[in-house]
Amino acid sequence: DPNLKVFSLNSNRKLAAEIANVIGVELGKCSVTRFSDGEIQINIEESIRGCDVYVIQSTSSPVNEHLMELLIMIDALKRASAKTINIVMPYYGYARQDRKARAREPITAKLAANLLETAGATRVITLDLHAPQIQGFFDIPIDHLMGVPILSDYFKNKMMDADIVIVSPDHGGVTRARKMADRLKAPIAIIDKRRPKPNVAEVMNIVGNIDGKTAILIDDIIDTAGTITLAANALIENGASEVYACCTHPVLSGPAIERIENSTIKELVVTNSITLPEEKKTDKIVELSVAPLIGEAIIRVHEEQSVSTLFD
Amino acid sequence: DPNLKVFSLNSNRKLAAEIANVIGVELGKCSVTRFSDGEIQINIEESIRGCDVYVIQSTSSPVNEHLMELLIMIDALKRASAKTINIVMPYYGYARQDRKARAREPITAKLAANLLETAGATRVITLDLHAPQIQGFFDIPIDHLMGVPILSDYFKNKMMDADIVIVSPDHGGVTRARKMADRLKAPIAIIDKRRPKPNVAEVMNIVGNIDGKTAILIDDIIDTAGTITLAANALIENGASEVYACCTHPVLSGPAIERIENSTIKELVVTNSITLPEEKKTDKIVELSVAPLIGEAIIRVHEEQSVSTLFD
Ligand SMILES: Nc1ncnc2c1ncn2[C@@H]1O[C@H](COP(=O)(O)O)[C@@H](O)[C@H]1O
Ligand SMILES: Nc1ncnc2c1ncn2[C@@H]1O[C@H](COP(=O)(O)O)[C@@H](O)[C@H]1O
Repeated sequence: DPNLKVFSLNSNRKLAAEIANVIGVELGKCSVTRFSDGEIQINIEESIRGCDVYVIQSTSSPVNEHLMELLIMIDALKRASAKTINIVMPYYGYARQDRKARAREPITAKLAANLLETAGATRVITLDLHAPQIQGFFDIPIDHLMGVPILSDYFKNKMMDADIVIVSPDHGGVTRARKMADRLKAPIAIIDKRRPKPNVAEVMNIVGNIDGKTAILIDDIIDTAGTITLAANALIENGASEVYACCTHPVLSGPAIERIENSTIKELVVTNSITLPEEKKTDKIVELSVAPLIGEAIIRVHEEQSVSTLFD
Repeated sequence: DPNLKVFSLNSNRKLAAEIANVIGVELGKCSVTRFSDGEIQINIEESIRGCDVYVIQSTSSPVNEHLMELLIMIDALKRASAKTINIVMPYYGYARQDRKARAREPITAKLAANLLETAGATRVITLDLHAPQIQGFFDIPIDHLMGVPILSDYFKNKMMDADIVIVSPDHGGVTRARKMADRLKAPIAIIDKRRPKPNVAEVMNIVGNIDGKTAILIDDIIDTAGTITLAANALIENGASEVYACCTHPVLSGPAIERIENSTIKELVVTNSITLPEEKKTDKIVELSVAPLIGEAIIRVHEEQSVSTLFD
C-alpha cells in the first residue's frame, strides 16, 4: 500500500528498519539533525500527502531530545498533510511520573500525552506502559502491546525441562509475573520487601517456594538495577539454584551494568524497545526483538482493526 | 506582595537572582534536577496556591532540556493551584523556525507556543523575538520587550564624541538599526549582500557613508558569527575607522568565539538573555544585564498594566 509510510527518528533506527522489513515497505526518507546551536532540524524528503504515517521513536535517554524530535516531526507531518499520524513508542518515557506522590509534583506522563496530541498525533502504539492507566491520559486511540509473550517464548525454548518459578521483584509486578507463569505453566513467587521499623534496613522476605528451582525475575523496567540485583541475591541465599532476569525496557542507567555484572543473575533478557549502546552490551545480556510484534500491530491498525484486545 | 512568586529554572540562575532583587522578593524554593536516567525531576518546595507565579527560563542551549524543564514546571505549578503562570523567556529558542521556508518543514516556533499553552502558561514575557510575528503564535497575552535601549545606552555613555554610524548586517535588520540610530542621533548604513551570478561568491556592498566613522553593527541574534565578522571586515576594508558589534541574544555556537577573536570587531556587546558559559567569556565581550528591564516589566504586569506598548 503506497499510502502506508514508516519513518524512523533517532532513538531506534535498527528496530525501525526491522519493522519496515516485517511490513514489507522501505523506511521513509527523512533527516533528523541539529543546527549549530543544538536546535533540531527535520527534513522530510518525500511527499506524505494523504498518507497514513507511522513514526518509530522511543522516548528513551536522552528523553528530552527524543521527545522533542517526535513532537517536531509530528508538527512537520501535520503541516505536510498526512492523513493520519501514528506514533509508535516502544518505550514511553516519563511513565513513572504518572501521579502526584507528593505535593506540588508534576504529572509528566500526562503532560507528554497532552504534548503529543497538541502536536497532532492521531494514534499511539506502545508497549508495556509502566502503569496501564496511562492509556487514559490520551484522548486518541492507543494500542497497548505486551512484551510478556516474547520474553516467555524465549525461556520456554531455552529451558524445556527445568523446574522453574517466575518471581516478581515487588508487589506491583505480580500480575505480570502471573501472565508469564501461565505461559510457562510454572508457579510464582514474590519478593516481599518490608521495613520492620522506620530507619531500619529493609528485609527481603520471599513468598512462595523457590527451593532448588530456576528462578526467573520479571519486571517492566530495569533502571539502576538495584531492586533486581538485590532480589536475585535474596533468591540464591534462600535456596534457588540459579536466577535469570528479564524485562521489556532496559533503561540500565547509572550503576546498572556494573551491578548486573557483579550480581548472581546468570542472564538478563531484554527487548530492543530501548536501543542498547555498545558499551552496555555484555555477555550476560540477551536482546530480543519486538519488530514482529510491532510490525504486525501496524499491519492490523492499518487494516483498521484495533489491536488492543488482541494482545491482552 | 506575598502573592508574587519568582522561580528560576536552570537556564539563567544569575539573571533570575538579579530580577528578584529588582522586584524586591526572594526567589522561590524549587529544585530542578535529573533522575538517574536523565528524566527531569522538579520539586517546588513552597506553597504557591493562589499566587501569581513568574518563571524565569530562556530556551537557550541545551534548548530541548530547557524547554522541557519549563513545560514540566508549568505542569507542576498548574496542578499546585497557581493563580497565574507567567513565563519569562528572555531568549525564545526555535524562533528562527518560524515559517515553512521549504516543503515539509516544521514550524517549531509555533509548536513551542502551543506546547507552552497546553502545559498551562497564562502569559509570556519575552525579549526581542527573531520575528515580531511570533507574538501572534500565542493566544495568551504576550509582552515583547526590546533590548535596543539597553544596548544604545551603553554606547551613548561610552562614545560621547565619536563620529558613529549604526550598521545593519543584512536587509532584515534595518528597522532595528534605525531604532538604535534614533537613540544615538546617528546615521545608518546597511550591508547589502548580493550574489552577482549563481555559484559565485557573495559580494558585500555597503549602502551609506561609513568613511572614517566608528561603525556599530547591531543584530538580534549572533549565532555562529559568520555574518557579523564578515560584515565587520567589509566595513574596515571600506574605510570605517573601527567596528563594534552588539546583539541582544549571544547564542555564540560552534566557531563563533574563534571568529570574533580573529575578526576586526573591537568589542562585542551582548545581554544576559542567554547565560554565557565561562569558556565563552573573552576580553572582547561585554555583558549588559536585562534584569532592570525584565524586573520592571514583571512589576508592571503584576500591577495589571500591559507593558507591550510601553517598551515599543
Ligand atoms: N525517571 C525516574 N527515575 C526514578 N524514579 C522516578 C523516575 N520518574 C519518576 N520516578 C519516581 O518513581 C515513583 C514511581 O515509581 P513506581 O512506584 O514504580 O510507579 C514516583 O514517586 C516518582 O517520583
Ligand atoms: N537554530 C538554527 N540555526 C540556524 N539556522 C536555523 C535555525 N533554526 C532555523 N534556521 C533556519 O534559518 C532560517 C530563518 O532564518 P532568518 O531568515 O534569519 O529568519 C530558516 O530557513 C531555517 O531553516
